[in-house]
Amino acid sequence: MNSSKKVAALRGLMKTAGIAAYYIPSSDPHQSEYVPACWERRQWISGFTGSAGDVLIGRKKAGLWTDGRYFLQAETQLKDSGIELFRSGEPGVPTLDAFVAKTLQAGESIGFDPAVVPRQRVMALTRALEGTGVNIKALPGNLVDAIWNERPSASGEVIKALPVKFAGENVGAKLKRLRKRLSEASADALIVSTLDSIAWLFNIRGQDVSYNPVAIAYAIVERKRATLFVDQEKVTPALRKHFGTHVTVAAYEDFEPALKQLGSKGSRVWVDPATLNSWALECLEGSGLVEAANPIEVMKARKNAVELEGIRNAHERDGIAMAKFLHWLDEEVGRGAVTEISAATQLEQFRAEGDHFRGLSFPTISGYAHHGAIIHYSVDEASNIALRPKGLYLVDSGAQYLDGTTDITRTISLGDRATKEQRDRFTRVLKGHIGLATAKFPAGSTGARLDSFARRALWDVGLDYGHGTGHGVGAYLNVHEGPQSISHARGLGFPLEVGNIQSNEPGYYEPGKFGIRIENLVEVVRDEKLSSETREFLRLHTLTLAPIDKRLIELSLLSPSERAWLDAYHQRVRKTIGPHLSAKVRTWLRAATSPL
Amino acid sequence: MNSSKKVAALRGLMKTAGIAAYYIPSSDPHQSEYVPACWERRQWISGFTGSAGDVLIGRKKAGLWTDGRYFLQAETQLKDSGIELFRSGEPGVPTLDAFVAKTLQAGESIGFDPAVVPRQRVMALTRALEGTGVNIKALPGNLVDAIWNERPSASGEVIKALPVKFAGENVGAKLKRLRKRLSEASADALIVSTLDSIAWLFNIRGQDVSYNPVAIAYAIVERKRATLFVDQEKVTPALRKHFGTHVTVAAYEDFEPALKQLGSKGSRVWVDPATLNSWALECLEGSGLVEAANPIEVMKARKNAVELEGIRNAHERDGIAMAKFLHWLDEEVGRGAVTEISAATQLEQFRAEGDHFRGLSFPTISGYAHHGAIIHYSVDEASNIALRPKGLYLVDSGAQYLDGTTDITRTISLGDRATKEQRDRFTRVLKGHIGLATAKFPAGSTGARLDSFARRALWDVGLDYGHGTGHGVGAYLNVHEGPQSISHARGLGFPLEVGNIQSNEPGYYEPGKFGIRIENLVEVVRDEKLSSETREFLRLHTLTLAPIDKRLIELSLLSPSERAWLDAYHQRVRKTIGPHLSAKVRTWLRAATSPL
Repeated sequence: MNSSKKVAALRGLMKTAGIAAYYIPSSDPHQSEYVPACWERRQWISGFTGSAGDVLIGRKKAGLWTDGRYFLQAETQLKDSGIELFRSGEPGVPTLDAFVAKTLQAGESIGFDPAVVPRQRVMALTRALEGTGVNIKALPGNLVDAIWNERPSASGEVIKALPVKFAGENVGAKLKRLRKRLSEASADALIVSTLDSIAWLFNIRGQDVSYNPVAIAYAIVERKRATLFVDQEKVTPALRKHFGTHVTVAAYEDFEPALKQLGSKGSRVWVDPATLNSWALECLEGSGLVEAANPIEVMKARKNAVELEGIRNAHERDGIAMAKFLHWLDEEVGRGAVTEISAATQLEQFRAEGDHFRGLSFPTISGYAHHGAIIHYSVDEASNIALRPKGLYLVDSGAQYLDGTTDITRTISLGDRATKEQRDRFTRVLKGHIGLATAKFPAGSTGARLDSFARRALWDVGLDYGHGTGHGVGAYLNVHEGPQSISHARGLGFPLEVGNIQSNEPGYYEPGKFGIRIENLVEVVRDEKLSSETREFLRLHTLTLAPIDKRLIELSLLSPSERAWLDAYHQRVRKTIGPHLSAKVRTWLRAATSPL
Repeated sequence: MNSSKKVAALRGLMKTAGIAAYYIPSSDPHQSEYVPACWERRQWISGFTGSAGDVLIGRKKAGLWTDGRYFLQAETQLKDSGIELFRSGEPGVPTLDAFVAKTLQAGESIGFDPAVVPRQRVMALTRALEGTGVNIKALPGNLVDAIWNERPSASGEVIKALPVKFAGENVGAKLKRLRKRLSEASADALIVSTLDSIAWLFNIRGQDVSYNPVAIAYAIVERKRATLFVDQEKVTPALRKHFGTHVTVAAYEDFEPALKQLGSKGSRVWVDPATLNSWALECLEGSGLVEAANPIEVMKARKNAVELEGIRNAHERDGIAMAKFLHWLDEEVGRGAVTEISAATQLEQFRAEGDHFRGLSFPTISGYAHHGAIIHYSVDEASNIALRPKGLYLVDSGAQYLDGTTDITRTISLGDRATKEQRDRFTRVLKGHIGLATAKFPAGSTGARLDSFARRALWDVGLDYGHGTGHGVGAYLNVHEGPQSISHARGLGFPLEVGNIQSNEPGYYEPGKFGIRIENLVEVVRDEKLSSETREFLRLHTLTLAPIDKRLIELSLLSPSERAWLDAYHQRVRKTIGPHLSAKVRTWLRAATSPL
């Protein structure tokens, strides 16, 4: 069945259900960024594979709303689907909600599956439709599932305990800290539906979702009991031993009666309306709600000393793999056999040579020339092209190691023939990267206060990039995590805190021509020199260790202090990574990291 | 009666009213920043004269909450009042709402006057008290008025029309544009309670409030009728002629029945919950509410070509006065007769020599040495000190001209003896000022995205300033206006737009020692070089024309482009202002603006 047939079949069901439009978000019941195959309904119906994007099927028109990272990809993938692309954030483009308000008539309804739409989202849609007479209808079940014949089944992979030598804190201690937060908020129970929060809290890692080492589960933390709702087939005796008396295991399906019981008892329940789906909230009817951000998020984002040590070690190993890869690339591209796919495969192989490797942390973005301009480019057999010794190659990749998660982007000049424009843009992106890497800021500042430092050199010449500057990163967990962010629009309520791991990834994209991004992960640390008893200043310590391509730098654009930063960074890379490389690669690294 | 006796008298009334605490905000029914004397209840009871600060009188404890600009001033003014200072925003200091939640018992009530507290504020307090069992009681009348024997009466000054040659757009055209907004929002009527919005919309200027050329009034704009509710004694025949058929004049007291009529008709009424007081909202019961920001704010903030021309002219005249003043200061301070008050008076006299002068736009901050560290220092006979030829003098002042409003701060080295620390701090503040003045940014950016540019050089050495970087400024209207702002915390929903006037005023304050601030007003303009059909970039054009004290610059800290900016700015000042000065002052200006 192609997309337009699927849409037609869905319209049949919509008619039966008496709705004029059906909302198909990319989300699953746990608001996962990478959605398990059995819940990839938006992808199945539209063909669009990006990580963010919502579909609306109307009676006549259908649309996909996605952001700047995915415009080019969505254009290609929606071709012939009958689904129109709405470029979110572009001038004149209505939001999905505004579109519904404008195109549906009073008395008509938009339907949705309450199991995959969080409460906050339903409220926003409700506000947008105020006064229009358009109704919002939560429909039982999911209409897409009803027409999806070969829908994959859920994963049955076992869950593993993450030893304290990697997690740094045992489950009992984490629960104790969390229960203190519950007590302060006078909450009897916390409902947890986000999978990385559950993995962090219980020191478990699963295999149910691609790239994110998490298990599909819900959790309820009460004052005296913590319950994990999960497919019990995945719980081994060893895992039960790990849980001890701290965690009670129940079936995934038992979550619903447990919620209803909290409701009927009139318990005071902490829920995060941004992530908890509206179905769960309906089940809680009768309970008193504390509606606030999931408190585990902030706890998880403040990495402890053991996690930080692990993350630094993981970045050393990742840097070794990157050095091998960048050397290999310089050698092989001229010989003509490298493609976007073979390069990504080779990089994964080098990573797999390191200790504790557990797979990639997201699909490698391996984009040559114009593909580099597709911010979240996902290469497949059809799009795969050969790397020639000319132009730019962008590789954004990361790995999961038992002791940490990595995420790095490098932009490489193939064949020393970068244009003046490319060198200018690369250098401005680098200036932005350094501007953020060297920032010092008062404790309590959000990342929003730093975001513009990474853009200024581009803004100076009328350029910009259409994505945030940095996201939080988990410790052997999701490569994208909150709550803090380096963005003018996200994470606004959450200051950067000591122990946060963030990406620093400004970029520049010239659609149809080339893309540039320079990404390192950084750790938020206290600046001891600037801090005293009465004030605290923070700074960012760069974790990622891999050369930044000097062939792309327009030296005259760098200030003396920017040059000094790059030379010092390269010296650190050389000293840390060099000893672990073969003589041949070490020689290459020495040249790649020599002073400007 | 001193403050502690007033508080005791109020507690008697509180007992009668059955409330455990009474909330006395600095606001009046129109949310004016400068409150007419008859409504200065917070000042009367506490003795604190700052423009921002709320008092809470509890049964035993009383507190004043104010922000960083006023900490030092409040400390002094609250002495012996029995009112404790709560430093808003400092770590560990509870907000007023949190304090109420913590200290009042379940079943007790906090009382307030609904005529001076906006709806949004009541809602925030309600949320803060959720679950505490503490009640919020709107009390008729104002308890302070009941014990305030010599309460001043309201002003009776006549209102004047502002000719179109200054306003740039007539009332009919403004109403037409506004009604288009009402129609888009399906609103039958807009309630306007903020005085500068009313003055702008009807092209009128009043004399009821110090420094703000506004008249006390309410307005209701309907599809076919616009009504000004005002003391009719202030409306001259000339003003009635100016209003023509566009504006109906009614008594100030008629506002209440007019609201009730809208309510009883069930009209759809646009109200701004951030500024409209909760009493007015009660009167509207029965109407359908469109709760959104007052649309006049954005219209008013986008100055038209005539206003911009006037503002630029006003800044030339203001610059001439500043040059005369700074020259006079250099001459006179050594002679020993200058005080903070005499300096402020002299500056006002120089301003009054220019055309169209209508008074000051706010009380001049004339702070020598340690007084400069008091961000909104207000000199009086008791605090007045002589300026000696040593240390720093900070003067922050502005004027109202028929064609524009000015606001400028200069920090002056008296006697060439600035310390290395003072020069370092001054230069960092200057770097921040230049960092903002030279910023280019994509259209649609809020000021929050620029704020950190003004702080970076201070952050680099662990320093900061405790206020926003820039506020909006009216056109012969309030010196502080919204909705946009250059701040990480204010104006977040409102991008900077072409025609906005903003201040650029980073500073640094060393309590007990000295204060530094460098403030120019800027105009948001389209950067033609960086803009095209598909993208728009904006930049800031500096309006203020007065030398920045070169004696305080540590040259080694400036980059070549920062030096070039200052030299070019000084050249512009010299060329624009110089021809209007006496030979003696011109000679002084030539030296003050010579290249670094």
